[in-house]
Amino acid sequence: MIKVGIVGGTGYTGVELLRLLSSHPDVSLQAITSRKEDGMKVADMYPSLRGHVDLAFSAPEKADLHSCDVVFFATPHGVAMAQAPQLLANGVKIIDLAADFRLKDAAVFEKWYGMPHTCTDILAEAVYGLPEINREAIKKARVIANPGCYPTTIQLGLFPLLKAGAIDASHIIADCKSGVSGAGRKAEVAMLLAEAGDNFKAYGVSGHRHTPETIEQLSYMTDAKVGLLFTPHLVPMIRGMHSTIYGRLSNKDLDNASLQALFEDAYKNEPFVDVMPFGSHPETRSTRASNMLRIALHRPQNGDTVVVLVVQDNLVKGSSGQAVQCMNLMFNLPETAGLRHIPVLP
Amino acid sequence: MIKVGIVGGTGYTGVELLRLLSSHPDVSLQAITSRKEDGMKVADMYPSLRGHVDLAFSAPEKADLHSCDVVFFATPHGVAMAQAPQLLANGVKIIDLAADFRLKDAAVFEKWYGMPHTCTDILAEAVYGLPEINREAIKKARVIANPGCYPTTIQLGLFPLLKAGAIDASHIIADCKSGVSGAGRKAEVAMLLAEAGDNFKAYGVSGHRHTPETIEQLSYMTDAKVGLLFTPHLVPMIRGMHSTIYGRLSNKDLDNASLQALFEDAYKNEPFVDVMPFGSHPETRSTRASNMLRIALHRPQNGDTVVVLVVQDNLVKGSSGQAVQCMNLMFNLPETAGLRHIPVLP
Amino acid sequence: MIKVGIVGGTGYTGVELLRLLSSHPDVSLQAITSRKEDGMKVADMYPSLRGHVDLAFSAPEKADLHSCDVVFFATPHGVAMAQAPQLLANGVKIIDLAADFRLKDAAVFEKWYGMPHTCTDILAEAVYGLPEINREAIKKARVIANPGCYPTTIQLGLFPLLKAGAIDASHIIADCKSGVSGAGRKAEVAMLLAEAGDNFKAYGVSGHRHTPETIEQLSYMTDAKVGLLFTPHLVPMIRGMHSTIYGRLSNKDLDNASLQALFEDAYKNEPFVDVMPFGSHPETRSTRASNMLRIALHRPQNGDTVVVLVVQDNLVKGSSGQAVQCMNLMFNLPETAGLRHIPVLP
Amino acid sequence: MIKVGIVGGTGYTGVELLRLLSSHPDVSLQAITSRKEDGMKVADMYPSLRGHVDLAFSAPEKADLHSCDVVFFATPHGVAMAQAPQLLANGVKIIDLAADFRLKDAAVFEKWYGMPHTCTDILAEAVYGLPEINREAIKKARVIANPGCYPTTIQLGLFPLLKAGAIDASHIIADCKSGVSGAGRKAEVAMLLAEAGDNFKAYGVSGHRHTPETIEQLSYMTDAKVGLLFTPHLVPMIRGMHSTIYGRLSNKDLDNASLQALFEDAYKNEPFVDVMPFGSHPETRSTRASNMLRIALHRPQNGDTVVVLVVQDNLVKGSSGQAVQCMNLMFNLPETAGLRHIPVLP
Repeated sequence: MIKVGIVGGTGYTGVELLRLLSSHPDVSLQAITSRKEDGMKVADMYPSLRGHVDLAFSAPEKADLHSCDVVFFATPHGVAMAQAPQLLANGVKIIDLAADFRLKDAAVFEKWYGMPHTCTDILAEAVYGLPEINREAIKKARVIANPGCYPTTIQLGLFPLLKAGAIDASHIIADCKSGVSGAGRKAEVAMLLAEAGDNFKAYGVSGHRHTPETIEQLSYMTDAKVGLLFTPHLVPMIRGMHSTIYGRLSNKDLDNASLQALFEDAYKNEPFVDVMPFGSHPETRSTRASNMLRIALHRPQNGDTVVVLVVQDNLVKGSSGQAVQCMNLMFNLPETAGLRHIPVLP
Repeated sequence: MIKVGIVGGTGYTGVELLRLLSSHPDVSLQAITSRKEDGMKVADMYPSLRGHVDLAFSAPEKADLHSCDVVFFATPHGVAMAQAPQLLANGVKIIDLAADFRLKDAAVFEKWYGMPHTCTDILAEAVYGLPEINREAIKKARVIANPGCYPTTIQLGLFPLLKAGAIDASHIIADCKSGVSGAGRKAEVAMLLAEAGDNFKAYGVSGHRHTPETIEQLSYMTDAKVGLLFTPHLVPMIRGMHSTIYGRLSNKDLDNASLQALFEDAYKNEPFVDVMPFGSHPETRSTRASNMLRIALHRPQNGDTVVVLVVQDNLVKGSSGQAVQCMNLMFNLPETAGLRHIPVLP
Repeated sequence: MIKVGIVGGTGYTGVELLRLLSSHPDVSLQAITSRKEDGMKVADMYPSLRGHVDLAFSAPEKADLHSCDVVFFATPHGVAMAQAPQLLANGVKIIDLAADFRLKDAAVFEKWYGMPHTCTDILAEAVYGLPEINREAIKKARVIANPGCYPTTIQLGLFPLLKAGAIDASHIIADCKSGVSGAGRKAEVAMLLAEAGDNFKAYGVSGHRHTPETIEQLSYMTDAKVGLLFTPHLVPMIRGMHSTIYGRLSNKDLDNASLQALFEDAYKNEPFVDVMPFGSHPETRSTRASNMLRIALHRPQNGDTVVVLVVQDNLVKGSSGQAVQCMNLMFNLPETAGLRHIPVLP
Repeated sequence: MIKVGIVGGTGYTGVELLRLLSSHPDVSLQAITSRKEDGMKVADMYPSLRGHVDLAFSAPEKADLHSCDVVFFATPHGVAMAQAPQLLANGVKIIDLAADFRLKDAAVFEKWYGMPHTCTDILAEAVYGLPEINREAIKKARVIANPGCYPTTIQLGLFPLLKAGAIDASHIIADCKSGVSGAGRKAEVAMLLAEAGDNFKAYGVSGHRHTPETIEQLSYMTDAKVGLLFTPHLVPMIRGMHSTIYGRLSNKDLDNASLQALFEDAYKNEPFVDVMPFGSHPETRSTRASNMLRIALHRPQNGDTVVVLVVQDNLVKGSSGQAVQCMNLMFNLPETAGLRHIPVLP
């Protein structure tokens, strides 16, 4: 059994990790830290876990994280890099669900996250945890930077196209929509049901932290310069993410069957990427509470633009599920262990 | 034109007052106070009011409330009683949307609201602002205690029955359901869309502040001792309140037509109470954004229990609309002035 | 492996059966019938099942139901009783999720369901499939009448009280609230998001089919005459059911600890009934997508009325999950096999 | 008073017309037709109108539409063109909320709407009812083709840019999102709350009827060839539409202030178009139940693409409100008569 610790288990990615890990066949949950909730039973905060998780939150200094095999950080940005050096020194692997190790250039990190990067040496060895792209590196990693939710959809939606040089990389548009759980479990007026319910809006249109992360990763897929326009929107739903990605075809003679084949080939062995028939309209709920991501292609009016639709559950494949998928790889478990949940519909 | 001030205009009852008053034909908005938002244009916080409200919030000490004819308090409990004496001394009338003047017994207030009552003399003269019951007193009042949202539905749902002695007053059950806007515009985790959405729960079952208020007011309607069991629930919707009230008939020979007649007679001249046909199922949305309250009666299996269904928009008839209705009465305006909005459906 | 057939797999109870059964360790899905969708891949209608269910719908006459060990009927009322005799004759067990075998008195069935009962002999042997009450009978049954969703909550919420004679059985009130999936996957204007969303209403207040079913079952728990007033309401959420049950204590000296003990004792070995601490407010989402039902007790103002709060997922413990629980018992499997899903929250 | 008839008043655009027209100071409602609901009181179908609309639905042949001054068609495509000739012959003006007169080229209509166009002569004289663009023509029109909801947002979002030649007209992307009321009040499984709730999806990506309408109208604004990629999505909310429009600047030296000035100048006298400060994020709810449309501009990373955000209530400015605005112009009333509703928020 893998001994697992979770730092910061009170938010949505934390409780989702608990849901996934407490029924994982190869995991033994050792500790869940929360300074604020020290001593509180996890199941008292989350009654959904009654009978499944017996642990109580403990203050970080009380938790014996050093005896874990791996520690997940479901914390605000900046926490993981503060604790990483000592854990690594004790032989503990790290999977950070925040952004501390996502951007290879510390200066870019500092610009977008407004804090200095305090362990650039670890940053250098950290592996970006997108298994469909970086599987082999993940297997050998000590430190995983779990991808952002939006970037996961955009990268998997563009990878086959960029790899094949099929689109103009310099002018990609990703119009993305997320459920409100993506904003976390924070007391914020804008996320109240009375505010965000029966309402729709864009946010961060002039600049969002997931833009540099995505551009960096897309750049590894192509020699061309990547230009990405990323527009996030807030949907009045709890879970779910839908990205509508527009790419201009470099080669207008590429027919639809060939486009489709690019995707089916790229993902034919992937357990968590489902390429739907050409022209499908995937719904976010078809992935609800599961680690599946679905993709469908369109080419309106048989023109020069390919439209890629991507859906996932932002808390699973977009976050905690992907982190568990990485853990499975790091510990040489079957990649799907503990992640075979069937989406909940309706 | 009536010169109107609003203290605490940043919450939901405040913005609803602004919506109603800014299109009221006989009102001139003079000042809206908010210490925290001093100087901010109201329409910058609430873009829905762009082009309709030009005022900025001002700190209380800057606002010339003393020159107003009436001041509405859309504030937390305790604020109105602190400012009432000086306003009244300057000839300004007061309508408090909070609970400061609702409970005639200061000791009961102190027990349920956890603060001492600081102006019991004003409490003595305050009039409970339920026009359908207290119309004449409201017309002459200087201080109005605007009713709670739940109590409004329970009182109007029971008034004809209690007045006629038709039910056992000692064992009434009011099972009530409210949209989340009733909790106000406060940053609170429990009211996030990700928490309250797609979810239903009861709260305060063992005791809620609206119980003593309702029992006091019901007691004025009957000589019998009133026993009320009030159970509030939270509905994943923004506006709307539905009360399901159970009363055991004292006289089992009372037929359904007579029951219905009790209600139709009681409310036949009321512009904002709609008695629907016997056996109807009123929907909350049939009152959305309007000052209308609708009632329907049922008698399951022709048994000894009458079920009264009552719906309203908690922010209008349940709060700000009722306050404006009181203002109309206090200033001898047509009772429906500024309140003829047709419910928004769908 | 148990060979399982499903008749009528296109509705919500059908797709939920598919979600539960396709990951059940001891089940082999053999056939899913739908006359209308004959030949359509199940996963084409429900993309959530892509990769999990390979079957296509087949017309009833093509499906080899007779070779199954058990057939679930997720059909409109009346279908199961038409097909039951032949299946039983072939040694196939039957679990009916509709009402055909719920009411022992065929005349009562005919009155409430508006159709003659065509196999009263099978009705006589059918077992009401509420495991917490009828476990031993279920184990030996050939035909299961799976309980209605509302009746499940009311029975489990009242069982300890009625068994102990703790409340007045003649005047029970059950004020119940259900998410819209309870209405099934039927094209109906009233269930459109634009109609049922941001809205709340009661329905069937004067009489609902679940009343006679519940009264019959409650009557088996007590010698007293049972009087039940049942009021269903529609909540703008997808899954979830909340029942607020009011019972008047026969013995006012019964203290709260004793009340609580009645429930804890009754359900101490139950894997799917969770008695929460006295005074809790269970949320429907704490059971979402799981077979768990949660109960909490209140006694407002320490008066003579006990309030029982019960929550469940109407499609799982309220329907398909309970049916699988019965199947497990009938085939001597662990009762929790295939039903250990952790609720999905948020 | 203008005598008004409505053909097909049972859908959402119909009931919204009733809400707007029944409180319009210059309108007298004469007749509302519905073959299916002949004789039913309008307020029995829509309790929100109790006390506001006394009319009953009448079968078309019974309604004296010929004595009306204007008839609104809130009907499926094809109905208006069948009845238009006779009404016009009787001097009745026509406002069609469906698509019968939107596309000048009957062949294009026939291709997209799958029915022959039966009165191309009337089509020739019909005026496209977008007041901000066609005000003078609307004033003189006998027949108005009320714009589609999506096309309204796209046109008003692009008009200042195209008129100024500021963007590449040949490669415009409009990624649009609509609440479910846009699909109408039809019993359809896909629009059930249990299907469309807590869910997000694109639809009609490969081709939607609003594409040719929008392209035709945009083409009148510029000499350049218009290329539009239009992607509609369904949002789990009732009312509201948000369009995110991407245009590549022709002149990269155009600064943001100049872009903003294009919009402010174009709409400075418009009562129903609100240009928000550069960089704003308009919310759909800021227009709920009102005829206001709001626009905000962004230029991410100061690049070569301008992003135009447009919000409206799809049932008001996107449909019935715009139709009333046209009526006001046709009858020389103040353009805002009956349309000054303040948006309902929250």
